Parts: sequence; C-alpha cells; structure tokens
Amino acid sequence: MSLIVQKYGGTSLAGARKVKNVARRIIKTREAGHQVVIVVSAMGDTTDDLIKMAYQINEFPNKRELDVLLSTGEVVSSTLLAMALHGMGFPAISLSGAQAGIKTDATYSGARITDINPARILKELEKDNIVIVAGFQGITDDLDVTTLGRGGSDTTAVALAAILKAERCERYTDVDGIYTTDPRFLPEARKLKEVSYEEMLEMVTYGFKAIHPRAIELGELYGVPILVASSFNDNPGTLIHKEVSMEIRNKVRGIAHDLDVAKITVVGVPDRPGIAAQIFVPLAEAGISVDTIVQNASINNTTDLTFTVAKSQLDIAMAVVEPIAASIGAGKCASDSKLGKVSIIGSGMQNAPGYAARMFDALSKENINIQLITTSEIRITCIIEEALVKDAVKTLHRAFELDKNGKE
Amino acid sequence: MSLIVQKYGGTSLAGARKVKNVARRIIKTREAGHQVVIVVSAMGDTTDDLIKMAYQINEFPNKRELDVLLSTGEVVSSTLLAMALHGMGFPAISLSGAQAGIKTDATYSGARITDINPARILKELEKDNIVIVAGFQGITDDLDVTTLGRGGSDTTAVALAAILKAERCERYTDVDGIYTTDPRFLPEARKLKEVSYEEMLEMVTYGFKAIHPRAIELGELYGVPILVASSFNDNPGTLIHKEVSMEIRNKVRGIAHDLDVAKITVVGVPDRPGIAAQIFVPLAEAGISVDTIVQNASINNTTDLTFTVAKSQLDIAMAVVEPIAASIGAGKCASDSKLGKVSIIGSGMQNAPGYAARMFDALSKENINIQLITTSEIRITCIIEEALVKDAVKTLHRAFELDKNGKE
Repeated sequence: MSLIVQKYGGTSLAGARKVKNVARRIIKTREAGHQVVIVVSAMGDTTDDLIKMAYQINEFPNKRELDVLLSTGEVVSSTLLAMALHGMGFPAISLSGAQAGIKTDATYSGARITDINPARILKELEKDNIVIVAGFQGITDDLDVTTLGRGGSDTTAVALAAILKAERCERYTDVDGIYTTDPRFLPEARKLKEVSYEEMLEMVTYGFKAIHPRAIELGELYGVPILVASSFNDNPGTLIHKEVSMEIRNKVRGIAHDLDVAKITVVGVPDRPGIAAQIFVPLAEAGISVDTIVQNASINNTTDLTFTVAKSQLDIAMAVVEPIAASIGAGKCASDSKLGKVSIIGSGMQNAPGYAARMFDALSKENINIQLITTSEIRITCIIEEALVKDAVKTLHRAFELDKNGKE
Repeated sequence: MSLIVQKYGGTSLAGARKVKNVARRIIKTREAGHQVVIVVSAMGDTTDDLIKMAYQINEFPNKRELDVLLSTGEVVSSTLLAMALHGMGFPAISLSGAQAGIKTDATYSGARITDINPARILKELEKDNIVIVAGFQGITDDLDVTTLGRGGSDTTAVALAAILKAERCERYTDVDGIYTTDPRFLPEARKLKEVSYEEMLEMVTYGFKAIHPRAIELGELYGVPILVASSFNDNPGTLIHKEVSMEIRNKVRGIAHDLDVAKITVVGVPDRPGIAAQIFVPLAEAGISVDTIVQNASINNTTDLTFTVAKSQLDIAMAVVEPIAASIGAGKCASDSKLGKVSIIGSGMQNAPGYAARMFDALSKENINIQLITTSEIRITCIIEEALVKDAVKTLHRAFELDKNGKE
C-alpha cells in the first residue's frame, strides 16, 4: 500500500465547515487505497492572533516562549481534523511535532530539522490510523518546543514524506497550482502541469509565493515529488519533480515578478581588493538582506557599485553605507526606491542560447529601460521601473508564448 | 530560600492587562525573597471556546483528542505570563505539564497524577528562573497528553507544592477567600482567616465553589497549607491547613447550600438483603450520581427508600428506577425536584453535642420543614424546600453567630 503525505494550509482549515471539507478530501485518498499522513498548519489567522497577543504583553517577546505559544495553533487544528475524521467514521490520531519525532536544533523561530524518528507515526499507521501531524514545529534534545519559521509546515510535510518514503507529498492551499505568471497580475496566465525543482526554486525566489524554497530544496534532496493543488476544488494541480517531460524542457516556463525592490549605487569606489567586504559585511551585520549586486567595469581605478535591497530596508541600508562610502574615499551614494524585478525562468534555457536577446528585445519594443541584469543558469532577471513591471510581464508572457496552450 | 507555589485561575489571566497584573504580583513574592513556581489555568473563556469548536466538528469528540486540544489553553497562558515577566526584567520560563514532569494515567479528561519528576523545574529554579507550569495537564507513559478534569489546575498546584516541599500553595482567583456562607446569598457573610482541610472538604462538597475537593485532599495528604485569595486586591485570604487555632475550633465555621437537589422515594420496598444493590447498581451504571440515601425503619417487612440526585438527572433516574421497583415488588416511585440543601460545617462539632438540636430548632422557628437529614462528623445537612434555602441560610448564620466578629 503506498503512502501519501498531504499538507493543508491555514486557509483550508479556517472554521468547522472547512475542516470537515478537508476530512472528506483525506477520506477520498484513503478510499483510493493509500495510507495517509497529514500535516496541518494553524487555522486561518490563528498564528497572527497569537503573535498579536504576545506583542500586547511584551514588545520583544522571548523567542523560546513565542515558539511554544505559536506551536499551539497547529496542535489545535490537528486535533479538530482528527475529530472530523472520527465523525465520518475513520480512525485518526493527532500528533504534535514532538510526538511525531521531529527533532530540531535550538534556533527558536527558525529551527532546522536535525532528525526524524518516525516510530510513533509508523505504529499509528500500523493500527490503521490516519495520522495527523502538527506542522511547523519540532522539539530539541532538551525537550523544548521549537518552530521552523516561514514555510515550516511545508518543510514538515516534505521531510516526513522523505523519511516515510512516501509516494508523493501533496500540498493543498487556496491556490490550485503553479501558473506561468501571477494570474491576479495577468489573467491569461496558464497553469503548469509540472515543473522541475530547479525551476520552482527560481520561481519562488523570484516572486512566486506558491511554496517555500526550503521545502522544495528538501524535496529535491530526497527526490520527493510535490503536488501543489487547491483544497477547494478538484482541478489538477502542478507536480514539482525531477524530470520534466522532454517536449517542454526547451522552453521558458514562467515569468516571475517582484515589486519590492530598491537600489543603492555607490559612485567612484576605489577598485582594490577587500573593498566589497568593507561595504557588505556591515550591511549583513545590520540584518540587511542584499539581493542583486552589480559592479561596473573599472575606469581610472574606480568603479560604481550597485546593489538592491527590500524597499523597507532602504533607509537603514543608506544609513549604514553612507559613512562607509565616505571612509573609503568613494563618491556619493544614490538610491532609487521605485523599482521592480521581472524574470524569465526555465530549465531549457541552460542548453539553448538566444533567450536573453529575445527578452531584451521584447522589453525594448515596449520602451522598457533595463537598469540591472542578473542571471542564473535557468533564469534571467531584469530590474526595471516599478510602474512598468506589469507591462513587462505581459510582454514577456506573449514573447515566450506562455499564453498559448502547449503540449501540457 | 523558601519556595512558594502560586496558582492563578482563568479570570485572573483574561487579557493582556490582567496577565501583567499577575506578573507584578509574582514579582512581589519574588522580591520578598521567595523562589516561585507558578501554575496557570487557561485565559478567561479559552477552554469553553475550544470545547465549543470541538463540538461544532464532532458531537462526540474523542477524549484523547479533546485533551490535546484543551491542553493548549494553559500552554498559551503560561507563555504569555513568562513574556510579561521578561518585560518587567525578571527571568522566567514556561513549562508544559509534560516538561514539568507531571505523569498521569491514561484516563483522558479525568487523569490522575501518578508521579511527578521535578528535575526540569529544579534545574530552572537553580538558574534563578521563575517557573511557570501549564496547569490541568500531564503526560502518559506513552507520551500522550492528558487533562486532569475539573479542578485540574488546583490539583497541579498542590501536587507540585507537595513534591517541591513548598512552604505554601497560594491559589488566586476572583474570590478573596472562604466565607462563612456565600456572600452573594447573604451579604453579612464573613471571611474566615483559616479553615481545616476537613472543614474545607465538607464545605466544597456541600456547596462552596472555592476550590476543588481533589486539591484539598491532596493538600491534606501531603500537609501543604493552601492560601485562597484574590488576584485583584491585597485582602488577606483564607488559609486552609491542618491545625485551626484552639479558640475557634469549637464552632460552626460555615453554612453551605446547594439548590440542585431532586428527591426520589421508592415506597414499600421489600426489606431483604441485596435489595439496595438491585436499585443502586443500575443507577451507577447509567452514570447517575446518587447523593444522600435514607432508608426508613422497616414496617411489615417493607421500607421506604429515599435518595437524592442532581435535578438534571431526575428524569433519567426515574426511568431507571421505576421498572426496577416494579420487578422487586415495591410500590410506586415518587419524586420532588424543588429541593435544596443547607449544611452547617465545623471541626468543633465532632467533640461537642447539641449542634443538631440547635440547627433543627432554628429551622423550625422559621417554619422550615426538614425532609431529610444526613450527617458526617463535622457536618449536618438538611434537605428542605428549595424556596426556603435562602431563609434557612440566613437563620442558621445568625443562630450560630457567624455574623459576629469572633477572634479571627
């Protein structure tokens, strides 16, 4: 009998009616002859409500305590889902992260799974139980509760699928799959039948919100196929797996975008070894996440150094960089907070030339000026004016024929 | 350094402001030079809300799952209280029942504590932490979460005080002590400075809602003095302990009452061995809690058997008893659902005669007819018409001079 791990997100579990709906979906999988292990997130806004309560009491809540507090949200939904399954006549049992054997390090609010002891889960499966595991949480060697941080429940689900050698990890939310671009942005976006781990990783890193990169990395590492689908309908979802069919490999698969981009340029930086570290180490220490970095060719032994940060971090980044620029003898620091990113992504790109040229050509025909360019093997990203991002997505979606129904 | 265990109830923790208030009270005890271990209930209506949610999903929720669900309420308040203490500059750590080493049997919703391993609590106290334990819960040998049922957090607190050899267990709610009778019923009720375990046990069993009998029994067994006081003011509370001062031993200490009393009389029961079992075993099996039982003297080899039950159980009790009465050749079954109980309680009564006479005399002077009488060594209870209970309490409160300020 094959085992399937299913993960249900908070919107799928918001309220008694939706919990029962999820129970019915689980039963369908079970009736199809599978063993099932379910991973749940906290219901609806529970986590946000708990965080709000904590901050009312202490503006700087202790992370250990916050983790214990937040972990209760997933425990609540796991027990309610078990009760719903019982009500429909199916044996089920809820397990906390600790009971499910999910061991982590002690990095509260962002713990990493160090090991999983699946003994209890296996015992309950043997008893014919549907096993429901509270996602997002684990336990340290000292028996302290931790949470896994953003994407935690996705990570729990994929990690369990890996250790249990599940046939597949199915991830259900209110989104029914991975689209060629954000459908709220561009209605003609098409749903993809499959994407590779690499493509998915680039997509989520460059603007798709579908699933957390940590879970995809883990899926890739252990070869766990991940189905992304909706819990509100029976539309076929998108399968994230290793090998994407031959016919669609040689294509751009998706257009990602990101509107949260600000740029800083330090003009006239002396071009000598170690200068980049002098600028970027203090930024990292200030907790600023630097994204794209571009260094222009050196003229007269000076160079212009440009990098991007999230808009919300622009002011603090400028405050860190300006005194450094002065101390190293650079020129002024310029910033622009009205930028966006548009990316084309596809595994096929790594073996075929011409994608960059086609992208730049399409953008220039729409008079969209490119400010910065970065690439990976399977992605090309252009940083452009924020107001032009929507037009750029539309143009590229057409230029790479994503609006046409292909072989999928 | 002496150790004090404090328990705060749900009304004392309902909302951020009250949680901070409790934190300040704890700090006072700590600043007075004590080590402190705190036991908390779930905030405000949390437990009721969780139960409601469970019943929306399944009318007959599985008890194991319900216990896991309910246990989250106390975990939430323990973490928030820890955060409040941190905010005031004091080291504190929350522990779940499991982390606090509270082992129980596997009787879900009504588990009994089988053992406590205080290692983690002691380790945290050594680190100078204020230790906050989620009350009402424990863990089985199989690492499944249980709840202790009604009075659970009180029981947790007294059990911890016993195992940690605490100087005292302090129990804080919105009630500031034990009164000679219910002050909402009789405004001239006076607060008692101290009561013995035995007196308190009789009081709570016969109508006082102050603290659960289980916690008192445990306190008596291990000799833990229990202070009952309010978390909303600094009024001195009532100390429940072993030896009540000489001067006040020879007295009625309180008047208890209970309005939830229904009576069933089986007329003409054949007076032969085993007949009581034939009636009461089926009642017990039907889950009916039988209270007072009175059997009148036998006339012509038949007897009238009278017993009381809670009003809500009268109909089902009648349905059980009537066919039995017919089958054993008894006469008809009569019932009365408009009854109440009034009790006088005091350790002094066991060594001094005349209390019963004084009680009956006082009631008769008010034309209050007594239907049934039961006694223990330190209590006399009369069952009377429900409508007369308030008058009876008033009369007895005066007759035994509880309205006068004594030596306390």
